[in-house]
Amino acid sequence: MVTRDKKLVIGTPDDVETIYYEAFRRCDINVMAALWAPGDVVCVHPGSGAVVGYDAVIRSWRHILDGSTMSGLRTALVQRMASDGLAVHLVAEQLPTSPGSEVTVLATNVYRKFAEGWLMVEHHASVVEARQDGGTLQ
Amino acid sequence: MVTRDKKLVIGTPDDVETIYYEAFRRCDINVMAALWAPGDVVCVHPGSGAVVGYDAVIRSWRHILDGSTMSGLRTALVQRMASDGLAVHLVAEQLPTSPGSEVTVLATNVYRKFAEGWLMVEHHASVVEARQDGGTLQ
Repeated sequence: MVTRDKKLVIGTPDDVETIYYEAFRRCDINVMAALWAPGDVVCVHPGSGAVVGYDAVIRSWRHILDGSTMSGLRTALVQRMASDGLAVHLVAEQLPTSPGSEVTVLATNVYRKFAEGWLMVEHHASVVEARQDGGTLQ
Repeated sequence: MVTRDKKLVIGTPDDVETIYYEAFRRCDINVMAALWAPGDVVCVHPGSGAVVGYDAVIRSWRHILDGSTMSGLRTALVQRMASDGLAVHLVAEQLPTSPGSEVTVLATNVYRKFAEGWLMVEHHASVVEARQDGGTLQ
């Protein structure tokens, strides 16, 4: 069982993002568990439905990170929007799948400011299957 | 060419969302063009890369809505987060594809408060291909 024992005090949305992708690369479930906010957070993994609530989100990450190797993960910020208490970043992720291959994922990450600092409240990821050529669903 | 001639003064993020899905259902590119903010907005259609900038986003919607029938579109709000100037809604969309069939899409919609009211600044949509069973990419 993963509990939110580890305390992180994070000063900016960029810092949450850096720590998030480091946890992802290192498959570190304890850091991952510490940077998500408690409560009604939500996570959409590629191709999946919405995982709602802190416990369910962390369970989903434990499943993903357990035994995985993500050291080759690379990211690039596509877009950012921010207000005083909320920040939204669109990030392009190059995720290793099998040796020699990778997939491009777009992730909308949402960070929120709490009394003790910034934490993650949403991650919505989707695989880029095709270029914008009109052949997509909507 | 679609221009942002139509002026909408929208009082709340919920109102933007209502107008957005009505425009989507009616395939009304003029209303769609009016509810997106000018500037560096971003849109991720299912399976696609990021479309960045107002003109490119509206062109992508023109392509999607032209000749389409979306009257059967149904939506349900999954989650919402808000600050003074930014709101993030996760919405489940049931989208008609061919007669008798539909697909579930999850959309993260981001709305921003401007001097003249709330407008859309991001739409990130992904198809739900499988339930959360651990068989997904990340």
